[in-house]
Amino acid sequence: MPELRIDPVRQRSVIIAVERARRPKDYQIPEEEKHLHVCPFCYGSEDRTPPEVFAIRPPGSAPDTSGWRVRVTPNKFPALRVEGELQREGVGLFDRMTGIGAHEVVIENPDHDRSLGDLSVEEIRDVLLAYRERIRDLRRDKRFRYILVFKNHRAAAGASISHSHSQIIATPVTPSVVIQELRAAQEHYLKKERCIFCDIIKQELAIGKRVVKADGNYMLWTPFASSFPFETWLFPMRHNHDFACLSEDDLLVLAQAMKDMLLRIKLTLNDPPYNFVLHTCPSLTPRPGKPHYWGTIENDYHWHLELVPRLTKIAGFEWGTGFYINPTPPEVAAEELRDIQIEL
Amino acid sequence: MPELRIDPVRQRSVIIAVERARRPKDYQIPEEEKHLHVCPFCYGSEDRTPPEVFAIRPPGSAPDTSGWRVRVTPNKFPALRVEGELQREGVGLFDRMTGIGAHEVVIENPDHDRSLGDLSVEEIRDVLLAYRERIRDLRRDKRFRYILVFKNHRAAAGASISHSHSQIIATPVTPSVVIQELRAAQEHYLKKERCIFCDIIKQELAIGKRVVKADGNYMLWTPFASSFPFETWLFPMRHNHDFACLSEDDLLVLAQAMKDMLLRIKLTLNDPPYNFVLHTCPSLTPRPGKPHYWGTIENDYHWHLELVPRLTKIAGFEWGTGFYINPTPPEVAAEELRDIQIEL
Repeated sequence: MPELRIDPVRQRSVIIAVERARRPKDYQIPEEEKHLHVCPFCYGSEDRTPPEVFAIRPPGSAPDTSGWRVRVTPNKFPALRVEGELQREGVGLFDRMTGIGAHEVVIENPDHDRSLGDLSVEEIRDVLLAYRERIRDLRRDKRFRYILVFKNHRAAAGASISHSHSQIIATPVTPSVVIQELRAAQEHYLKKERCIFCDIIKQELAIGKRVVKADGNYMLWTPFASSFPFETWLFPMRHNHDFACLSEDDLLVLAQAMKDMLLRIKLTLNDPPYNFVLHTCPSLTPRPGKPHYWGTIENDYHWHLELVPRLTKIAGFEWGTGFYINPTPPEVAAEELRDIQIEL
Repeated sequence: MPELRIDPVRQRSVIIAVERARRPKDYQIPEEEKHLHVCPFCYGSEDRTPPEVFAIRPPGSAPDTSGWRVRVTPNKFPALRVEGELQREGVGLFDRMTGIGAHEVVIENPDHDRSLGDLSVEEIRDVLLAYRERIRDLRRDKRFRYILVFKNHRAAAGASISHSHSQIIATPVTPSVVIQELRAAQEHYLKKERCIFCDIIKQELAIGKRVVKADGNYMLWTPFASSFPFETWLFPMRHNHDFACLSEDDLLVLAQAMKDMLLRIKLTLNDPPYNFVLHTCPSLTPRPGKPHYWGTIENDYHWHLELVPRLTKIAGFEWGTGFYINPTPPEVAAEELRDIQIEL
């Protein structure tokens, strides 16, 4: 069972794989060797992943056979495990808990060589539908506090398999980044009865210089305090706290905005490695003895997507301070992303 | 002038280089081209850096000439600039300030091919002496809140020049990582009148399984909640809040412990890329109208050194949650680091 440990001073959480400990030699596998094997995400390899938990496939076709358009399976080497009970324990000055959670892989399409931005708008909609269905399902498990959907594109951004896929991790605690975001949004709302994200949208539209595109449905922009060069955020322009309540029609509109975003990033930066993270509200299942921390969440939170191209390295300064150094102002990044010609 | 911007929701700080904006093509310089040039840190290149601010050199030799053993110069492309006044400004919902600070490079030795761990104990002591002198000097500038000393070893850890060097950055605000550490230490002290780091040392020595080496002067160990595989911390075993008050004799003892640490990391992991960060107390100059936030710092804080080998990638999950996934338990890392044979 993996362990979730918390540093007593820094309050940083880490998931430690205590069973399958990687030794020094495990970090020295040459790049070529990693890619010799048959891709476990292509048609015909369905038995090389754990049984699927969701798929979009032809009516009547059996699970774990070819023919699917999108396929979600548990991660074969999960960071957190579904089986077991959530146990919390103090060890002297330290705190740990059992590494309960879920870790799933969304195989975005059968074609080994097409990345998410290369898919059609309808195909991207199907990927988003898989995200939505898995979030809805995982939220039913009362042990989970947050369902994180994210994507690592290319090895330099952390992808260990090149066939295009996203990941979903359900965590037994609300992650610190999410708590910070929820708290700031709630504080703003309690003071002003306005959503901070809606306020930002309005301000950015008025200023204009960081907006890449705004079509009434979505605003694509480079945030004022971008931590990384060409960091790009996609905000729904109408207030909505939860990605998981989007309809299939809504998802088609989002798919179009996402394809536009991914193509702009790809063309402007020569298909860079990137990560994106879906920011949506946490699981809101009431728990005995726990007050609803996020009481006004429907009003104060605003789901969105954050994308960071990986062009610079995180080094000692970032690690020691929590500060970032960004050599490209977001105003310049927005200009470059706006000027690129896109055909959807 | 660079700008320091703060995200209104995430409260993340970023230094944005507004003058010399890097455009998309600047991120696509082939690796080979970067290394064609003459090394600016070797003997004979002293005029290719800004004038030195500290050096250990033969008596009577002129500044910015060859013959030095350690040399500190301002960074030619500084993240923060020394000249100017610290100005804070609100821009609608956003906050920014002028990017005032200092950014210096410590050239650790004249030899292009020797890394810090390859130097003799006396040579490492000289590097530490340079750190100490620069911290003491920069603390006199009342605009600076924190002086950060760190090192990026190899390109994968963020080093843009291969000649062995460390960096010093003075920041106009106390970095969030430092604030978190200082707050936790102070809370513990106010409750218990004990230093949390001294408590951790005692507990770790009793448990034993994460201690790599403890000789009465320094404890080398792998922290309970290591965020990265083989993360290694070096703690002085006697309580002391400030690295900058070490004597030259103290620095020689520290140099020996550091060489031991760097060789263990090098031999266990085949000379991996790494970052280390010196954690010491902030500048304590009183400021008009600002109470001393860190009132008990001499008692509650404990300087130390943190080293992270860069064996895994920071990807979407880490970025979206603030959590880390570590595939090597610190207990396993300590065992490997303990078993390696070192000759000092």
